[in-house]
Amino acid sequence: MNRARKLYETIGAEAVLTKKSFLRLYLTGFESSAGYVLSDKDKDVFFTDSRYTEAARAALKGTGIEVVEMERRTTIDDYLKGYKQLAIPFEQTMYLEYKRLADKGFELVDSSAAFTQAMTIKTEEELSRIQRACDIAEAALKKLMGELREGMTETEASALLEYYMISGGAREVSFNTICCFGSTGSQPHHVPDQTKLKFGDSVLIDFGCKVDGYCSDETRTFLFGDDKKHEEFKKCYQAVLDAHNLVLETACAGMTGQEIDSIARNSLAKEGLDKYFTHSLGHGIGINIHEHPVIAQRSETKIVDGMVFSDEPGVYFDGQFGIRIEDSCTMKGGKVQTFMTSSKQLLIL
Amino acid sequence: MNRARKLYETIGAEAVLTKKSFLRLYLTGFESSAGYVLSDKDKDVFFTDSRYTEAARAALKGTGIEVVEMERRTTIDDYLKGYKQLAIPFEQTMYLEYKRLADKGFELVDSSAAFTQAMTIKTEEELSRIQRACDIAEAALKKLMGELREGMTETEASALLEYYMISGGAREVSFNTICCFGSTGSQPHHVPDQTKLKFGDSVLIDFGCKVDGYCSDETRTFLFGDDKKHEEFKKCYQAVLDAHNLVLETACAGMTGQEIDSIARNSLAKEGLDKYFTHSLGHGIGINIHEHPVIAQRSETKIVDGMVFSDEPGVYFDGQFGIRIEDSCTMKGGKVQTFMTSSKQLLIL
Repeated sequence: MNRARKLYETIGAEAVLTKKSFLRLYLTGFESSAGYVLSDKDKDVFFTDSRYTEAARAALKGTGIEVVEMERRTTIDDYLKGYKQLAIPFEQTMYLEYKRLADKGFELVDSSAAFTQAMTIKTEEELSRIQRACDIAEAALKKLMGELREGMTETEASALLEYYMISGGAREVSFNTICCFGSTGSQPHHVPDQTKLKFGDSVLIDFGCKVDGYCSDETRTFLFGDDKKHEEFKKCYQAVLDAHNLVLETACAGMTGQEIDSIARNSLAKEGLDKYFTHSLGHGIGINIHEHPVIAQRSETKIVDGMVFSDEPGVYFDGQFGIRIEDSCTMKGGKVQTFMTSSKQLLIL
Repeated sequence: MNRARKLYETIGAEAVLTKKSFLRLYLTGFESSAGYVLSDKDKDVFFTDSRYTEAARAALKGTGIEVVEMERRTTIDDYLKGYKQLAIPFEQTMYLEYKRLADKGFELVDSSAAFTQAMTIKTEEELSRIQRACDIAEAALKKLMGELREGMTETEASALLEYYMISGGAREVSFNTICCFGSTGSQPHHVPDQTKLKFGDSVLIDFGCKVDGYCSDETRTFLFGDDKKHEEFKKCYQAVLDAHNLVLETACAGMTGQEIDSIARNSLAKEGLDKYFTHSLGHGIGINIHEHPVIAQRSETKIVDGMVFSDEPGVYFDGQFGIRIEDSCTMKGGKVQTFMTSSKQLLIL
C-alpha cells in the first residue's frame, strides 16, 4: 500500500489534500517544487505541472498513485468540487491557503499528527537513503582531511567539503556547513569566515548532505597538529566522546527523549562539564534536517524502532574552543545503531 | 531612518510584528534563523536568542533597532501585552501562528502589501549585495569553463561551479544549479545527472549564489566544440540573444511586465520561435530568487527604477537542445542595466 493510501486510512477524512513540498515528497517519494496530493476513498492522485509530469509518471509507476498534469489556468479547486470535508496539515498550512479553503465551505480537519506519526518511523527505503547520504558525507570529510593546509580559510574548507559531497552524488547540502578553526568553535552555529587554519588549531566541522530528499548530519572535532597545549582540550574531548558513546551503547527503545538526553548530560556532569553542554542532545533527521523527535531535557516522546536522530553532545569554552561529536543514528531492534563508520578517537592530523 | 521604522510608518498599525526569516533580514539587514522584529510608535526591537545576540548587536549598532535576547521560556507573547492591534504579513504567516494571535484577541491587519512594495525597490546597499553575488557567480563560471573536459558529468560540473561560488565568497547557492549537456537542455528545469560531456554538445547552465542574503541569477548556453552539426542551434541562439538584447536596449521604466515580456516574445516570433518560448521572460530577484515583480504575459505591474529582475528568454526543442540566456538586471534612470559583464556572443569552447 502506498504512503498516500496509508495516510488516507489513518486520517479517516472524506479527502486528504497535501500541498507542502516535503509532505508531498514523503507521500510519493518524488521530489517536486509544485503540486498537490489528493486522496479519497477511490484513489490517490498527484497533481503537478508540465515540468514534472513525465518524470513523476515514471517514478510513480506501479505505486497506485495516478499523475495528473494541471493546466495553466486550472487550480486544485477545480478538483475539489463534491467534497464536503478536507484534511490538510494545519501545522504546514499558510493562513491564506487555510482561509481560501475555509471560505469555500469545506469542513477542514488537521492531518498534521498523522504525518508526524508516520514520518517519524522510517521504512527500509528511507533508511537506505539516509545511509547513502551519510556515506557520501563521510567520504567527503575523509577527502577534505587530506586537503587541509595551514593558511586555508574556513570558507575554503567548507566550500571544498560541500564540493566533495555534491560531486560524490548528493543533490545538495542538508544545511550550510559549520566549519570552525580554533576559538571560533566556541560558537555552536559559527558561520565560516576568513579565519585561517594554523598549526595546533582544533577543527570543528558540522555538515551534511541530501540524497533523494533525505538528510545526513554529522559533526567531527579534531586537531590540526598537536602544539602540546591541548591538555584541557584532550580531557574534554574524551569526556564528550564518552558521553556520545554511552548514548550509542545504553540508550534503548522505549526511553523518552529526556532520558536519552540525560545519559549524555549525566556522563558530562561526572567530569563537571555539563554546564558547558548548552544545547540539547539531538533531533530527528529525515526529509528535514530537524524534525520529530526532539532528544532534549523537556522531551517526553518515546524513542522507538525506526526513528532516526542525532547523538551530538558538545562543550563550548568562550574564546577558546568547542567540541562536538555527532552521528546520525537509528533505533533498531531496541538498540541504537549509528549510520557512521569513521573512528571517533581523537584524530591529530 | 531604518527599514523597520519606514515600514511601521507606512503600515500605520499600533504595532508591527514580523517573524518570517527573509522579512526580518529585510528589516534589519541581518541574517538569522529565529526571532521577531517588533515596532511600535516608540521603538524598533529585534528579539532573538543567545546564538545571535552578540552578532546582532554589532550589526545593528547605530540603526536605531534595539536587540533583546529572549530567554528560553519567554515567548514573543510576553512582549505583546498592551497592544490591541498588530500588523503581520498574512501572505507569510502560518495558519497556526495567525490563529494563536487571533485567539489572544489582537486585531490583526495585513502588512504583506507594504513589504512587497518596499522590497521590490532596492536601495544602493541592496543593489551592491546583488552586484557582488553576480560578480562571484560570473567569476565562478569563467573558472568552470576552463575545467570542462569530455567525459565530465553534469553532476560534477555543477558541483565544481558551486564550489567556485562558495570558495569565491558566497554563503550558499541561490538555488540548485541546473546544468545540461546536449539534449537534456530541452527540459527547462533539468536536474544534473550522470550525463557525460561530449564533443559538440550544447551546454546550458542556470546558476546563482547568495551574498549577504541577496541572490544572483544567470544562465549561459554555449557549445563544447563545434561538430558542424549546429546550424539550427546557431540560428536559434542568435534569435534568443537578439530577444534578450532587445529587452536590455528598449525596455524602459513605466512599462508593464506584460509589455517587457512582449518585447522578447515578439522578437522571437519574427523567427517563428515564440512557440518554443514556453515560460515567462523574468522574475524579481532580491533576498528571494523569485520575488515581485513578475515579467510575464499576464503581469500588469509597472516596472520602475530600483526593481531587480531577470531577462531570460529561452527556446526548447524536445530531445534536441535548449537555449536560454539570462542576466540579472535592474531598472536605473529609466533604462535597463545588467549586472553581468561577460560576453553573450555564442562561445565555442
